[in-house]
Amino acid sequence: MGIQTRLIDYRDAGLVFEGNLAWDDTIDGPRPGVLVAHTIRGRSGFEENKARLLAEMGYAGFAIDVYGKHAIGSAFDDCRRMMDGLRSDRATLQRRLLLAVSTLRGQPEIDASRVAAIGYCFGGLSVLDIARTGEPIAGVVSFHGMFDAPGNTGSNRIQARILALHGWDNPLATPDQVVALGEELTGMGADWQLHGYGGVRHAFTNPAADASTGVTVYNSAADRRSWAAAKYFLAELFDT
Amino acid sequence: MGIQTRLIDYRDAGLVFEGNLAWDDTIDGPRPGVLVAHTIRGRSGFEENKARLLAEMGYAGFAIDVYGKHAIGSAFDDCRRMMDGLRSDRATLQRRLLLAVSTLRGQPEIDASRVAAIGYCFGGLSVLDIARTGEPIAGVVSFHGMFDAPGNTGSNRIQARILALHGWDNPLATPDQVVALGEELTGMGADWQLHGYGGVRHAFTNPAADASTGVTVYNSAADRRSWAAAKYFLAELFDT
Repeated sequence: MGIQTRLIDYRDAGLVFEGNLAWDDTIDGPRPGVLVAHTIRGRSGFEENKARLLAEMGYAGFAIDVYGKHAIGSAFDDCRRMMDGLRSDRATLQRRLLLAVSTLRGQPEIDASRVAAIGYCFGGLSVLDIARTGEPIAGVVSFHGMFDAPGNTGSNRIQARILALHGWDNPLATPDQVVALGEELTGMGADWQLHGYGGVRHAFTNPAADASTGVTVYNSAADRRSWAAAKYFLAELFDT
Repeated sequence: MGIQTRLIDYRDAGLVFEGNLAWDDTIDGPRPGVLVAHTIRGRSGFEENKARLLAEMGYAGFAIDVYGKHAIGSAFDDCRRMMDGLRSDRATLQRRLLLAVSTLRGQPEIDASRVAAIGYCFGGLSVLDIARTGEPIAGVVSFHGMFDAPGNTGSNRIQARILALHGWDNPLATPDQVVALGEELTGMGADWQLHGYGGVRHAFTNPAADASTGVTVYNSAADRRSWAAAKYFLAELFDT
């Protein structure tokens, strides 16, 4: 045996969502659980591969879904419409994310007291929103996330430690927005860190990024450095 | 045997400087060399301890001096005067720093093709200045350095990789100055990274920092995280 996976349904307001859990059954459980929040494209092999890597590190990875099971694999324009809808209705996004957190906590392979979240692009925004709700998870890691504040969490205290891994030339998250994020997170009492990578753009972890517009550009050094930083951060969270 | 140290004099424009080299003689040399640039206080046990830690990692550490051998151990006000003099005469500072680099390269324990620099506070500014000169060293790490551009290096190409480890609430290096540093380093073609630590102030690596004014404040988490980041960075530079 070794790395196992299981599809898991969860429900909110009449919609069914589908996550994919990965864990190593040669390691005695329960183990820390790490949610993986998806890009604009919805849950895909990209996030499932990250969940598998987390499983190989001795955690369980849970590639979640906030669009709905019916929408997995949708065309890009449909994905953009779903993302835009959730970015303009952050309370609904946050409810779906917290449902995914509680679903992860409820799995028998998971130590419910040791849960964290990582996310990419839109998923980077998503995991910051989990932290902003005040949910007591151990920590969150945003990879090339967007930073705009949700508007409904300003009076909360952040309990999760935060690590933002950021391409400094990301046109979707400018230096001014970095400064604003710092003010927001400090005001909410967070233990936060931001690693900025000079000359690096959006989606730097994705080898398949379409670099033609100059917005999304893979960067192998930033990919490697950010993953190493995330591993160190998770080990700090879970004392592993 | 084990960790060895040796005091080394070097000379510029009639002044004698004194550095302290540390290396592990149970490891076969030559080995990568890492210069350690000092705080406002001049070369002290603080930097010599970092040089020793570098030696224990298999490198050689070289705690340098840019004030002059006669001035080691000077009173704080004298140190401030010397630092202010060099901050307003960056060409002289840079010349002394590059002399320290060449002195390190010339030691028999050192692989002259594998040299880097780390520095603290004023030493953080100093190692950024080494990079700004275009000197082909492998990399520099600034711990709570000041970021003001020297004014005499804007047309250079930076060859050293750069890692700045920064307390986001450092009153001596504000978010606006972070943004300006990013523009400067990107404009000079650098491979740079900046790790910002939320709520952290100046001198966060120094347990003896006087926190009474709110400027210099030790932070154990940022101290540990920044050292881990520096270790990873040096290992990347030297492929160790």
